[in-house]
Amino acid sequence: MSTPQLIRYQHPDKGAQVAVVVDDTVYDIPDLTIEAWLRLSVGRVEEAIDELIDLIQSIKGQKLETIHYLPPIDSQEVWAAGVTYMKSREARQEEAEDGGDVYARVYAAERPEIFFKAALKNTVGHGDEVGIREDSQWNVPEPELGVVLNPAMEVVGFTVGNDMSSRDIEGANPLYLPQAKVYSASCALGTGIVLAPSDEFPDTTIRISIVRNGSEAFADAIHTSRIKRTISALVSYLGRSNTFPNGVILLTGTGIVPPSDFTLQAGDVVTITIDDIGTLQNTVKVV
Amino acid sequence: MSTPQLIRYQHPDKGAQVAVVVDDTVYDIPDLTIEAWLRLSVGRVEEAIDELIDLIQSIKGQKLETIHYLPPIDSQEVWAAGVTYMKSREARQEEAEDGGDVYARVYAAERPEIFFKAALKNTVGHGDEVGIREDSQWNVPEPELGVVLNPAMEVVGFTVGNDMSSRDIEGANPLYLPQAKVYSASCALGTGIVLAPSDEFPDTTIRISIVRNGSEAFADAIHTSRIKRTISALVSYLGRSNTFPNGVILLTGTGIVPPSDFTLQAGDVVTITIDDIGTLQNTVKVV
Amino acid sequence: MSTPQLIRYQHPDKGAQVAVVVDDTVYDIPDLTIEAWLRLSVGRVEEAIDELIDLIQSIKGQKLETIHYLPPIDSQEVWAAGVTYMKSREARQEEAEDGGDVYARVYAAERPEIFFKAALKNTVGHGDEVGIREDSQWNVPEPELGVVLNPAMEVVGFTVGNDMSSRDIEGANPLYLPQAKVYSASCALGTGIVLAPSDEFPDTTIRISIVRNGSEAFADAIHTSRIKRTISALVSYLGRSNTFPNGVILLTGTGIVPPSDFTLQAGDVVTITIDDIGTLQNTVKVV
Amino acid sequence: MSTPQLIRYQHPDKGAQVAVVVDDTVYDIPDLTIEAWLRLSVGRVEEAIDELIDLIQSIKGQKLETIHYLPPIDSQEVWAAGVTYMKSREARQEEAEDGGDVYARVYAAERPEIFFKAALKNTVGHGDEVGIREDSQWNVPEPELGVVLNPAMEVVGFTVGNDMSSRDIEGANPLYLPQAKVYSASCALGTGIVLAPSDEFPDTTIRISIVRNGSEAFADAIHTSRIKRTISALVSYLGRSNTFPNGVILLTGTGIVPPSDFTLQAGDVVTITIDDIGTLQNTVKVV
Repeated sequence: MSTPQLIRYQHPDKGAQVAVVVDDTVYDIPDLTIEAWLRLSVGRVEEAIDELIDLIQSIKGQKLETIHYLPPIDSQEVWAAGVTYMKSREARQEEAEDGGDVYARVYAAERPEIFFKAALKNTVGHGDEVGIREDSQWNVPEPELGVVLNPAMEVVGFTVGNDMSSRDIEGANPLYLPQAKVYSASCALGTGIVLAPSDEFPDTTIRISIVRNGSEAFADAIHTSRIKRTISALVSYLGRSNTFPNGVILLTGTGIVPPSDFTLQAGDVVTITIDDIGTLQNTVKVV
Repeated sequence: MSTPQLIRYQHPDKGAQVAVVVDDTVYDIPDLTIEAWLRLSVGRVEEAIDELIDLIQSIKGQKLETIHYLPPIDSQEVWAAGVTYMKSREARQEEAEDGGDVYARVYAAERPEIFFKAALKNTVGHGDEVGIREDSQWNVPEPELGVVLNPAMEVVGFTVGNDMSSRDIEGANPLYLPQAKVYSASCALGTGIVLAPSDEFPDTTIRISIVRNGSEAFADAIHTSRIKRTISALVSYLGRSNTFPNGVILLTGTGIVPPSDFTLQAGDVVTITIDDIGTLQNTVKVV
Repeated sequence: MSTPQLIRYQHPDKGAQVAVVVDDTVYDIPDLTIEAWLRLSVGRVEEAIDELIDLIQSIKGQKLETIHYLPPIDSQEVWAAGVTYMKSREARQEEAEDGGDVYARVYAAERPEIFFKAALKNTVGHGDEVGIREDSQWNVPEPELGVVLNPAMEVVGFTVGNDMSSRDIEGANPLYLPQAKVYSASCALGTGIVLAPSDEFPDTTIRISIVRNGSEAFADAIHTSRIKRTISALVSYLGRSNTFPNGVILLTGTGIVPPSDFTLQAGDVVTITIDDIGTLQNTVKVV
Repeated sequence: MSTPQLIRYQHPDKGAQVAVVVDDTVYDIPDLTIEAWLRLSVGRVEEAIDELIDLIQSIKGQKLETIHYLPPIDSQEVWAAGVTYMKSREARQEEAEDGGDVYARVYAAERPEIFFKAALKNTVGHGDEVGIREDSQWNVPEPELGVVLNPAMEVVGFTVGNDMSSRDIEGANPLYLPQAKVYSASCALGTGIVLAPSDEFPDTTIRISIVRNGSEAFADAIHTSRIKRTISALVSYLGRSNTFPNGVILLTGTGIVPPSDFTLQAGDVVTITIDDIGTLQNTVKVV
């Protein structure tokens, strides 16, 4: 490696940049100023040079293994659709105290069930913990394909989502849906946004595995062709009389429902895989 | 190349980062937010993905050739020492209207001549234009080794400097020194700061070439061993009763003086090379 | 007035401040620097001095009349409670296609109906336009007392809210509640937050007037003592398994319901007054 | 006072502002957000309201007495002219080891002596301490009228300046002028910039008093009519082949010189008053 050289140069878009030149290659050091570096170097000049070289290593692109993922949203809302698979309709009717006629009706209606699911503050990323409400006895994950939309409601990519749900609270009264759906760590997204946009649902399989104390407690899979509605129909209703100036994520409903006697416990590890899209794994905690 | 994926992750120092993953390597996209990217992608999703991929190419490190250099300072002052070589003493006496006894005295004195040379606003980088005053008839470059000091006055590296001087203005009266030395584009520094710090002058040669209309009008060279003072002695006086909270550059004087009948003209190309430190080239303009 | 003087001084909390001194009184000019002022004054020194004096006049405090209000939230979510008044229960049952047994049940249950109403993007301030959905035929305002909560879920003040609702969409299926409640300009708040915090509902009257083409089309009033639930009970459920790191606004439900044959039209002016809290006026538009 | 109300509104120039309304008057709270205020109020709601009211009191304009002044520059350079009064020419000749012919020449020459005096880092404000160099035995203040110039070199106001000088260092060799003039705390400016611009020197008197151990050790005064050069002539040379993109302060030289046996000591209090411009007081320290 050649002796590193600290330079300033005029970037056509970014303006004055401080960079390090090694072996005739220029590495921008974001946010560095000469002033900051000179202050940093006080009493430890060689060490400060080594740090610059380390910084270059990191800029060259780091390996994926040790990343602590965050959910791939910042100012976007996450919305979700319900009862988009036959299986889901049946499950909702099963949990409802009054027989769940409302679910049969919405499954058949032109207008889908769509609802505000979470902002960033209630969303976790791959590797973080998802929540079950401490005042609920019957909780399930809902593994869902997430459609990522820009402010023009164009599909820009896909992600994997988990729309955590309290079946007993929703079952007690459909008016409690927001409380069954919207709470701390109730939404998981990740690992990122796969940038292979399409107006059609990808031809893929959604898989879930729940491991408890080292053994698989539940596993199932469903193909996206089983979704009753189209992306464009769902997006059309999402965008009716509403706008999303920063884009939005739409979870497209679940076709996988664990048996009625199954409920999540703290410590369960939920792994959702959508072929070609990615894998989202979270451990369950009580919130 | 694998399908690129946009992720957010928690960087241990920098906090939430947006990055692109390609082939299991993570490239941070400085200052990007999901929100900004989604807005950018409106109406041109594929194009926006291509831009992300281009961005990764640039982050991998750009080639040096096309850089528009800036001087390697931001909030630092540039100071300069004078009469640190025998040759310089002789030149100053020659130009002085009164015989220049003050130069003989300062050459022999313990206290060196040091003076404020420039802030960023009057300093140019490699490839930019240096100035000669429009009210001066006798102008020369002064090729000098620059010592880069941090706020503790420790040497952190070296650079190449050009301390442009109006010999007739200084010669008329030593009290005009600041006007002969401090004016628009009167200082050039570059290309960058070589991070090979040392308390001793590097054992190297300072070379200058002035090309006018395609022909070399003047060239000379001098070895740094000819400097009469040490770095520590110069720095000691620079730091006496003065502090530089953002660091400072000290140009260490010149031992190369063109003949008395030589003066710079607009369009001259001045190239200063210090072996192992770098090359600083500037074209002359009238300011 | 004395000749104004521009000064810099060290504010104990805010650091270096640029201020103007007139008649021995110091007026901070927020965000002004000497540099900015000197640049501003180029070619028009007297005018720039007059501008500084005008700035002082504005800093002394402007009159209220001409303010363009914004909703008094920035990063807070607005949530709302439903069916907290007997009148509201009756209205919901009336609109429901299936007789609305779910409303009777929630009115009697310990757990209240609470739901996500809006983020800033769907909220308007006093004087702005509220929305009715273009795909809805039956729309009403819901005049409500808003409780402003800090991140510790302490009451810090009160405001006036309008929880705009599409009765036909909600009536078709309770699962459509989010679509009946959450859309562009569906929430109005203002004028501001009255800083008279209390854990009890203020002893006051909520009044609404709807003016169409210059005549009052509907008016009603209800006293806050008619709310069936307490602030602490509602807030307790809002904070269950959920946190609001930036605070939250809770609208506390309505006890005023226009007759069944009444629906809002574009151009209607809705004025909601809560004695001692304030007045919120908005014109209706189709969104 | 009415119950304060926190509002947000749209300012025509500044965008969304958070303000407090009291008695129908709107007080902007610079940089406040609703989010910040709600976080601030956690656990101490009443106290946070009181702080807002205190803030309003401060915005109404604070009294002048307790201000800790800073010098009225931020990114401007301070330059100074020398030998602009007859008295100054005589003093310089007196201190010079070689008889000071250079001073007689510059006094008579068309080109004035002007030099870089200080950037912000070596400048102090009214009430702070000015420095005398620890390696100098003969130090004096130089009370001077300061002209404040914008980037177009237009006069925008006046200030009071103290161009601290080491007479023995300058006297040893005029090449040491920068060391005699440029060091820590070598420049004082203040209290502020009087915004009564004029192209002519104000018709006023510059007064100095030096108090040592409670007694006046030196005092003198001189009228500005005794300045040999005009503002426009000095500014013309300052701006020759040089630009000041952020403006510049020019100290216009001194006509007051203490007797030859006088030197400043640590603890001396130097008070400079220019009628109609202001008073600048500083205590002396060794730097």
